[in-house]
Amino acid sequence: MLKLGIIGAGRIGRVHSESISKYVKGAEIKAISDVRVTDELKEWATGMGIENVYEDYKAILNDPEIDAVLVCSSTNTHAPISIEAAQAGKHVFCEKPVDADPTKIREVLREVEKAGVKFQVGFNRRFDHNFKAIKDRVVAGDIGDVHLIRVTSRDPDAPPIEYVKVSGGMFFDMTIHDFDMIRYLSGSEVTEVYAAGGVLVDPRIGEAGDIDTAVITLKLANGAIGVIDNSRKAVYGYDQRAEVFGSKGAVQTRNDTDSTAVYSCEKGVISEKPKYFFLERYMQSFADEMICFIDSIVNNKPTLVNGNDGLQPVLIALAAKKSLDEGRPVKLSEVS
Amino acid sequence: MLKLGIIGAGRIGRVHSESISKYVKGAEIKAISDVRVTDELKEWATGMGIENVYEDYKAILNDPEIDAVLVCSSTNTHAPISIEAAQAGKHVFCEKPVDADPTKIREVLREVEKAGVKFQVGFNRRFDHNFKAIKDRVVAGDIGDVHLIRVTSRDPDAPPIEYVKVSGGMFFDMTIHDFDMIRYLSGSEVTEVYAAGGVLVDPRIGEAGDIDTAVITLKLANGAIGVIDNSRKAVYGYDQRAEVFGSKGAVQTRNDTDSTAVYSCEKGVISEKPKYFFLERYMQSFADEMICFIDSIVNNKPTLVNGNDGLQPVLIALAAKKSLDEGRPVKLSEVS
Amino acid sequence: MLKLGIIGAGRIGRVHSESISKYVKGAEIKAISDVRVTDELKEWATGMGIENVYEDYKAILNDPEIDAVLVCSSTNTHAPISIEAAQAGKHVFCEKPVDADPTKIREVLREVEKAGVKFQVGFNRRFDHNFKAIKDRVVAGDIGDVHLIRVTSRDPDAPPIEYVKVSGGMFFDMTIHDFDMIRYLSGSEVTEVYAAGGVLVDPRIGEAGDIDTAVITLKLANGAIGVIDNSRKAVYGYDQRAEVFGSKGAVQTRNDTDSTAVYSCEKGVISEKPKYFFLERYMQSFADEMICFIDSIVNNKPTLVNGNDGLQPVLIALAAKKSLDEGRPVKLSEVS
Amino acid sequence: MLKLGIIGAGRIGRVHSESISKYVKGAEIKAISDVRVTDELKEWATGMGIENVYEDYKAILNDPEIDAVLVCSSTNTHAPISIEAAQAGKHVFCEKPVDADPTKIREVLREVEKAGVKFQVGFNRRFDHNFKAIKDRVVAGDIGDVHLIRVTSRDPDAPPIEYVKVSGGMFFDMTIHDFDMIRYLSGSEVTEVYAAGGVLVDPRIGEAGDIDTAVITLKLANGAIGVIDNSRKAVYGYDQRAEVFGSKGAVQTRNDTDSTAVYSCEKGVISEKPKYFFLERYMQSFADEMICFIDSIVNNKPTLVNGNDGLQPVLIALAAKKSLDEGRPVKLSEVS
Repeated sequence: MLKLGIIGAGRIGRVHSESISKYVKGAEIKAISDVRVTDELKEWATGMGIENVYEDYKAILNDPEIDAVLVCSSTNTHAPISIEAAQAGKHVFCEKPVDADPTKIREVLREVEKAGVKFQVGFNRRFDHNFKAIKDRVVAGDIGDVHLIRVTSRDPDAPPIEYVKVSGGMFFDMTIHDFDMIRYLSGSEVTEVYAAGGVLVDPRIGEAGDIDTAVITLKLANGAIGVIDNSRKAVYGYDQRAEVFGSKGAVQTRNDTDSTAVYSCEKGVISEKPKYFFLERYMQSFADEMICFIDSIVNNKPTLVNGNDGLQPVLIALAAKKSLDEGRPVKLSEVS
Repeated sequence: MLKLGIIGAGRIGRVHSESISKYVKGAEIKAISDVRVTDELKEWATGMGIENVYEDYKAILNDPEIDAVLVCSSTNTHAPISIEAAQAGKHVFCEKPVDADPTKIREVLREVEKAGVKFQVGFNRRFDHNFKAIKDRVVAGDIGDVHLIRVTSRDPDAPPIEYVKVSGGMFFDMTIHDFDMIRYLSGSEVTEVYAAGGVLVDPRIGEAGDIDTAVITLKLANGAIGVIDNSRKAVYGYDQRAEVFGSKGAVQTRNDTDSTAVYSCEKGVISEKPKYFFLERYMQSFADEMICFIDSIVNNKPTLVNGNDGLQPVLIALAAKKSLDEGRPVKLSEVS
Repeated sequence: MLKLGIIGAGRIGRVHSESISKYVKGAEIKAISDVRVTDELKEWATGMGIENVYEDYKAILNDPEIDAVLVCSSTNTHAPISIEAAQAGKHVFCEKPVDADPTKIREVLREVEKAGVKFQVGFNRRFDHNFKAIKDRVVAGDIGDVHLIRVTSRDPDAPPIEYVKVSGGMFFDMTIHDFDMIRYLSGSEVTEVYAAGGVLVDPRIGEAGDIDTAVITLKLANGAIGVIDNSRKAVYGYDQRAEVFGSKGAVQTRNDTDSTAVYSCEKGVISEKPKYFFLERYMQSFADEMICFIDSIVNNKPTLVNGNDGLQPVLIALAAKKSLDEGRPVKLSEVS
Repeated sequence: MLKLGIIGAGRIGRVHSESISKYVKGAEIKAISDVRVTDELKEWATGMGIENVYEDYKAILNDPEIDAVLVCSSTNTHAPISIEAAQAGKHVFCEKPVDADPTKIREVLREVEKAGVKFQVGFNRRFDHNFKAIKDRVVAGDIGDVHLIRVTSRDPDAPPIEYVKVSGGMFFDMTIHDFDMIRYLSGSEVTEVYAAGGVLVDPRIGEAGDIDTAVITLKLANGAIGVIDNSRKAVYGYDQRAEVFGSKGAVQTRNDTDSTAVYSCEKGVISEKPKYFFLERYMQSFADEMICFIDSIVNNKPTLVNGNDGLQPVLIALAAKKSLDEGRPVKLSEVS
């Protein structure tokens, strides 16, 4: 039985706790830490069967029984804590993005390699049943050579302005998943990025220095072209679709819904809206990424989302930001 | 160039005129007759390029230039006019039902055979792209042995009560198409019928001695079971679907719509209602049945909807009516 | 924390154990019994955190700490064990069918009522997201008066012949769920049944005295007509659909699939087959029926699948069998 | 009865002839001209009921009975013939593109205005039922402010290399329709274009100086962003889809198919491929654009695809070509 420590007891830390306790065999959470240990947190931890609740994450790193840690703290601490954890000999699951600075990510990767521990980044959507079904077709050769990859990624509503101000921008907090998806589905590396964007949803987002709507074109090393369209607000729900097109065919996915019911009446033929929230939509993928992480440790296999998978989307996001600012395509080599 | 005469200038007679002039090569309408020749009819005929408009259909039968006639007059005249036409050496396209009395239909078939003319019955839905796609799968062997056939056939609105009183009942004026479809899709003959029905749409239909809602189970000679569900009123439009299920798979069709547009908004994901009216829904099939009829004459091929195809659905309708009245399954041999 | 005992550690007993431990808050399984206690069972129970494993279910009934039992033993023991459990003051969740004999079911219901305990029957499909979405539309009045209910229920493959011989027949082991669904979706009682059936999948099923293909028509007290089509073998997977049609519209459900991926290639546009197995398809409903049961105990609410809901489908199955044998519609009053 | 002359008896000239004779009331074709008058053409014209077949299009322009001409000759003659026709007082329907040189298009527009004749450009897809359904939602305000427009336009197979060499390039012969569609659906003007493209389908296309795969991003005056993805070869058929997304919702269209049949078997759930060829897919739109043209003449209404609608897509194509060549976004003002 593998023993885990979770660093950071916010939303995503608790999501992982719950999916581990429900779905992951062969692992249990021994401790959780958070900079604010409240009574509510203690009670929640008890309910989850977690023995120890610490204020200082170092208590987790110092526990020799703990095999692996999940870094679910605030983004700016991902890199330093990952490094410390690796140095303490813990396997590391790190939430995305690892850091906004490629230099720091590379430092993490060096330390991880030096320590010989497993390192997995939280790009959970790779484990989503729909995106995985696309990937399976690509890998099986059913698409042939990949020519076009399209990702539609639209949130159901804009985040609070306070969050927008500190999030690092839409490309870093939202599109980062889509950048990863383009690489994952294509099996190739992004070499150049062109981003067109605007403030169409809420002017306050623009005042906060960000955009809320974008189309990003990505050139890939294998010649394929990727394109992402983003919006911070799709009034009909969380719109998450993708398509890969190639020499032998195409595969695309629709949104998931709560049921398949279709209602026909005088007004039209009405089916359900997409699942509204990322936790509903992607819950299964959170469990499966954890099962993958545990499996890579127990059976000494490579993780399916490795260090370079943590680095590349950050480089793409940097290039996208630069492209948007300068109104021109930007090569990844310019930001690496 | 084949010359045609149309007997009966009501809705269906005009539908055939228009589809012949637009889509059917190698045939032209030389004359049309109707018991009421109005100025409007004459003007319409001129617009269609039809030379002659007669009050008496015998003028058409007596024209030696006319090769074939379309019997589009009122139902009670279908059989006698078909017989006269055959005796006059004209090929006959007869609207459905040929007659409500099997004895009269058999007489028509004898005369047609004696005269050696072509005889086709107006079961246009056999030529519909959707039902034809099902049939093609069945014939190709993709379904294997047929086990179940389901037909959903619901009108967008109940006919006027005056029509209900003289129509011969729902089984004869509406379900007759579905009875044909069960035979067509299964490639087998109906041997026994059980009908459950009720008056749920409009009590006046019940007062007129008819029903407006039904489920009819049909046993087929090859062991398969067919089931039809009917309603006189589907508020969302004309609902016309079918499914054939067998040892190797199943094939089903959805409704046709005016466009494929899907609108997603806060209320839901809304697509279009089925095409509302039988003329919109089945226009292509009216043209194709006529092309088939002309082809069978010109190339001396059997028609695709022959005399027995005109007889069997009437027998099934009689059995369904008897089943409904007596509350028990009725064998076709009881009504033949 | 409610304490549960599970009687019968076969497939369904273990399904309930797992869904309770994963999804049901406020309840834990204290003991499980089975007529055959193997090492494998003991090990499984340990893994599930179940303290006690008994050979004799009476040990569960005699444990004063246990609040409720799940009767998951063989069908012929459902009724007597349910009676004993009620007399012991335990709340009872009983798998379907309660019994094949209505007299015994009525006896169970009397004892349950006398004891004042909760009683829920395992018609899990009522809790399925798709069927629930239909029910919600009906209850909301979106369908208006219900006119037609269609249930398609086809298994992915025929059960072993040995099972067919003892199952009580297709109507009792498979269609029983569909009989319940007709009542549930319509909100009305079945008054008369007509069953057409045949042996089209496997002649050995016929030799064992059963059928493998059927269409069952059901008349309901409110005038609506229900129709079920069944097959023991749909080569494309587990086909579970339903439709309710009424004066204001219709609602229908499609099958669930593993992903929404659609692959377009030279051969066609290919989407996924229905989920293959009832455990995959209905897992969520097994959890939700258990949550409902626990909730009805803890908050002293009526169960959503009560004693009469256990009785009626058995009466319908008896009528369907009699209809099939005698080739005529059978009123429920004939078998009650 | 309006009298028409058709200049150019190639594929598109004949398509218009057939749709006019079948579907357009109030107009007839009096003459057709082609630089090569063959026996086959004469025979075809006779079959269509066209009285006159000329080698010299001036014979059409000189016929005072002819009210309007359809310019269906080779692209390089569109502008000069349109000018001559306008000067001769004929209303002009001109196939797309009017010319590859904006100066020449502007000259045409000046002459048309001077002559006071109607001028319509052959962007038939505006009249397609699917794209029209999107436009109707936009115009009705159901989408709110438009934020994103996506057009997928993929041909079923690459044209012959000989054609590629003279076509003017993919942007001019294929994407030109999509450029028009972006303007039409958004109701706004394109201000800047970025094109990423490659040769992924057939290296001979690259050798001929063209591309076969592209993603084009378009900035619009109202702030919306458009994106087009193109391929010369989709092995599954002619892929023609669009989506408009905005503040109140989104609307998207799927491909049309020959039937709605869905076949379920062991291999999967298989529906039909998109209609393969543009003539099948867009036949209804060719008829409807002609009805619109005739209507604008007869009732003296503005045409729905006017001179500026002919000019703008050419400017966009020029900008796209320049963007591709120079690897940077290009403003329309740079090529105007």
